[in-house]
Amino acid sequence: MTIRNTTFISRGGRYRTEADGTLLELAAAAGLYLPSLCGGRGKCAKCLCRPHGSVTEPTALEQELLTEEELREGVRLACQARPQGEVEVAVEEEILEKGGYVEVVVPPEPPLRKVYLELPEPTPHDDLADIERIRGVLKTPLWGGPAVLRTLPTVLRQADFRVTATAWDHGAAGVELLSIEGGDCRERAYGVAFDVGTTSVVGYLIDLFTGREIARSSRLNGQQPWGADVITRASHALESPTGLPDLQAAALSTLNQILDECCAGVDPGEVYFVTVVGNSLMHHLALGITPATIVASPYVAVTRDPLQVRAADLGIGLPNAWVYFLPLIGAYVGADTLAVIMATGLDESDEIRLAVDIGTNGEMALGSRDRILATSAPAGPAFEGAEVRHGMRAAAGAIDRVRIQEDVRIWTVGDVPPRGICGSGLIDALHQMVRWGIVDPGGRLLPRPVLDGKVPAKILDRVVGRGHTWEFVLSGEPRIVITQDDVRQLQLAKGTILCGVRILMDELGISPGEISAVSLAGAFGNFVDKRSALGIGMLPSAIPMDRIQGVGNAAGQGSRMALLSRSIRRRAEALARRVDYFELSKHPRFEDIFVESLAFPDPRTTAR
Amino acid sequence: MTIRNTTFISRGGRYRTEADGTLLELAAAAGLYLPSLCGGRGKCAKCLCRPHGSVTEPTALEQELLTEEELREGVRLACQARPQGEVEVAVEEEILEKGGYVEVVVPPEPPLRKVYLELPEPTPHDDLADIERIRGVLKTPLWGGPAVLRTLPTVLRQADFRVTATAWDHGAAGVELLSIEGGDCRERAYGVAFDVGTTSVVGYLIDLFTGREIARSSRLNGQQPWGADVITRASHALESPTGLPDLQAAALSTLNQILDECCAGVDPGEVYFVTVVGNSLMHHLALGITPATIVASPYVAVTRDPLQVRAADLGIGLPNAWVYFLPLIGAYVGADTLAVIMATGLDESDEIRLAVDIGTNGEMALGSRDRILATSAPAGPAFEGAEVRHGMRAAAGAIDRVRIQEDVRIWTVGDVPPRGICGSGLIDALHQMVRWGIVDPGGRLLPRPVLDGKVPAKILDRVVGRGHTWEFVLSGEPRIVITQDDVRQLQLAKGTILCGVRILMDELGISPGEISAVSLAGAFGNFVDKRSALGIGMLPSAIPMDRIQGVGNAAGQGSRMALLSRSIRRRAEALARRVDYFELSKHPRFEDIFVESLAFPDPRTTAR
Repeated sequence: MTIRNTTFISRGGRYRTEADGTLLELAAAAGLYLPSLCGGRGKCAKCLCRPHGSVTEPTALEQELLTEEELREGVRLACQARPQGEVEVAVEEEILEKGGYVEVVVPPEPPLRKVYLELPEPTPHDDLADIERIRGVLKTPLWGGPAVLRTLPTVLRQADFRVTATAWDHGAAGVELLSIEGGDCRERAYGVAFDVGTTSVVGYLIDLFTGREIARSSRLNGQQPWGADVITRASHALESPTGLPDLQAAALSTLNQILDECCAGVDPGEVYFVTVVGNSLMHHLALGITPATIVASPYVAVTRDPLQVRAADLGIGLPNAWVYFLPLIGAYVGADTLAVIMATGLDESDEIRLAVDIGTNGEMALGSRDRILATSAPAGPAFEGAEVRHGMRAAAGAIDRVRIQEDVRIWTVGDVPPRGICGSGLIDALHQMVRWGIVDPGGRLLPRPVLDGKVPAKILDRVVGRGHTWEFVLSGEPRIVITQDDVRQLQLAKGTILCGVRILMDELGISPGEISAVSLAGAFGNFVDKRSALGIGMLPSAIPMDRIQGVGNAAGQGSRMALLSRSIRRRAEALARRVDYFELSKHPRFEDIFVESLAFPDPRTTAR
Repeated sequence: MTIRNTTFISRGGRYRTEADGTLLELAAAAGLYLPSLCGGRGKCAKCLCRPHGSVTEPTALEQELLTEEELREGVRLACQARPQGEVEVAVEEEILEKGGYVEVVVPPEPPLRKVYLELPEPTPHDDLADIERIRGVLKTPLWGGPAVLRTLPTVLRQADFRVTATAWDHGAAGVELLSIEGGDCRERAYGVAFDVGTTSVVGYLIDLFTGREIARSSRLNGQQPWGADVITRASHALESPTGLPDLQAAALSTLNQILDECCAGVDPGEVYFVTVVGNSLMHHLALGITPATIVASPYVAVTRDPLQVRAADLGIGLPNAWVYFLPLIGAYVGADTLAVIMATGLDESDEIRLAVDIGTNGEMALGSRDRILATSAPAGPAFEGAEVRHGMRAAAGAIDRVRIQEDVRIWTVGDVPPRGICGSGLIDALHQMVRWGIVDPGGRLLPRPVLDGKVPAKILDRVVGRGHTWEFVLSGEPRIVITQDDVRQLQLAKGTILCGVRILMDELGISPGEISAVSLAGAFGNFVDKRSALGIGMLPSAIPMDRIQGVGNAAGQGSRMALLSRSIRRRAEALARRVDYFELSKHPRFEDIFVESLAFPDPRTTAR
């Protein structure tokens, strides 16, 4: 297998990924939104770039849209070029300013001091201990653990007592001498914010003094061999004697690999703080705590508290860093949701907002500064293309956009022949089928005879029988269809999300019109067509489309906020206690609302 | 080689040692002073005991002093019987009450709570996290680190939520959940106080609630292979790339072996606190901190602060314990001296006291509650029998007592033929030689012709020439002599101690008569003849003998005090800052006083 390694170099830092995709997609995944009008269809020729390294050959589209000179100079369309090995892409500054993801500006507030000291050398008449020498000059009741004391005497003397001391203020627990370095390096203080997802893990290397992002890197979570979803992984942890150590080691190894990538050119000894957000299972596994209580009734966490541990004690390769795990809201609503709430500003909003983070589970929070309800809606993996006949991840050849007019039009990732269909394509397809009445409000894929005369002939031809049910053909060669079962899977998934939103609204006593903003977090939020999401009734239809916004990796953003600021960490801690976790099934009308939520909007009452 | 293992079983606990010696000596080393009027000479027949296991056969003396019935029943004189393998000795209760070592009664004041809880089990309507369930009942803002969180869910459920929680109050840093156990085990909470000496390490297992000693165990410091003294060990640490890790691992391994022995029958998980006293080098090495700064001019410590680290982080096999290293006074006056000061009550005394701990270095402290001066006098190893022609440790066959009347009388450890001479024997011998004028006040071993007519004929015969100098024959077969060089070594050693005491007195502006008590700590203090120590001028001659007291292992005693009480630890911390370390060579008249101190008392002006 080819090892891909794509690095985007921008004013903001270095962004590295091993994922597969077009450079446009990879840049977007890294939070760099290159200009594109056509959405990566190879039509607008706006996403020009000049990659260095091993990329695919120019496509026919590029041959057509680029000048000969551009082609000679290696200019490419980012939506067409795909990495094949090591690739570096310099991103122009003006491009960086674009992009629709949220970025909350947090004033850096590290409880960190780096002080350059020219210390008097010890003499027979000045025989202070090494650490007292520093304490005396800093005029702080500084303490040092064994690790820093092991390096202190050597560094002091090698640097002729001209050193930079790094002190971390632990509040009630005093001020700790975190590290000592030779010479003046007051400028350099880094932190890493992690978002540990079930599928992928992202790390952001941040300058703790300026808040500037230096680099970011993402990787598949190394726990993949033990299952794609949390339940399979939890089973491994519980059933195998090496299960929990396996999963913890895999998580930590992923973090260490990301650190290796992020910290190229940075001294790991100058990384002083790390934040971690993740769902409750990722949290427990990374800490080596059994997930047994999370995955079995009555579903409780072992701890939801914020936890701060030395990186070295946990096995993370940063000799001088503390790692802060943001608190959890509940057994099924983790620190990731907490981070999304902070990143979207929901907890500080005067008006009511909704944030939805759709992965395998749909975690959602609804509320304002007054009260916040959160829940986890077990939507299942259909939106990720799993458990769907021709479902696949959003890789090359995945149908990611579908329109039905006189006939079906499909678009694929990378503009290559279709190989399957990914989440955004499924929602598009379903929306179009609902809109044309091919799928009725109850979720039945109507028999061809029933549709005869109601849809154009070419569309009708695509409704074909299979056994006792019907299916809809998106592509004949290769054959890609939406089956009745697929519709049911998607119906359950969207119904679960809608049910969650409606129950939270009911609990809070509000109507859809009172929701001032809906933030769709995660990759899903970036790629799904909002019209289609509304069109299949995944959100209450009364929410105006212009209030819905994709906000990118809001969980990662929340982790970054917490990294930079102790106030934000205190906010997270207060928030974790303040958010009411609401278990959907506890609602007295849960079954009712769930069944109601399964319905698709009736095309006769909604505009096409 | 025979593996010896002697265990004394008493009301106070189990005391275990691997050392060689008579049972009387071994008991004394363990702090159990069996009744003895003759000082272990096999004369008084008071030290009766009934050892079980492999001991030496009854000696001729025992055959004479014990009845046939006693001999049949295995009754022995403790001063005669020596272990040859596994031996257990039950010590009668009334005997335990005896003994001259200091034992300061410290009211146990552990910042520890063990609480038995019958917790409500989680339900769908009571979904607190596991640690919150405990916190809620304890009504304490309890926190738990990853280690306890890893055991918490399993213990809770295996014990049906009937558990004992152990909480440690860290003061400003909050209350930590140290461990969780199934069932009710509120009664059991242990601590271990260590005295880490250069030569041997002692550990005391203590009940943290009652202060009662459960067991003690001593072992040779595992660092022995890298030198008998601190300087040789420091050289290894500095010169070999594996030096520091070697020495740290050896120290920790010794601690772990002692824990294994002490904690037989005790769950290591119920040991919650450990204290460590040791000299500065032992302190740094055990923590893995380079001793480079301690052993080279200008001789400073890397840290003198109290340090508290998790036992598990240090590699000590106690899963739930914190280890507290008492603070150091200076680079050459360690936590051991601090512990001696506390154990002898010097720092709380209204009157001026002197404490001297004589090992390879003589550490001493002089003062009262108002002001304390401490110093380290590099006496060298002569008092331990090293660098002396026939010197040896106080093992079987060591001459440990010498008297000169018409002829020389010697006593040996174990009443076996002499093999050499140990510290207390050397001081005795020197005292006798000074008293008889065989050694003049300047330290010259006088030529036989000069002594002719001044000493009895049998004594004169023992003064024999060797090259240009003379030597004194203590034993002809095997030949054991005191050479002129030996006298010089001892003279330097005693002169160094006296010089230290005199300089401290001078600094404090006091005369010998103002010293209300002199505590001689350590093995030396227990075994040396006070009259001989005064007779060679090791202490100012104006100090009355009845003010001099051997106080046993006062450093270990101080460690025990600190183990039991947070107030004592705070006292130690304040004391470490308060004690003035005085470097002897800084005294303006240092050379003068040193040379004066070398002189032996003139027998013409002192009583025989």
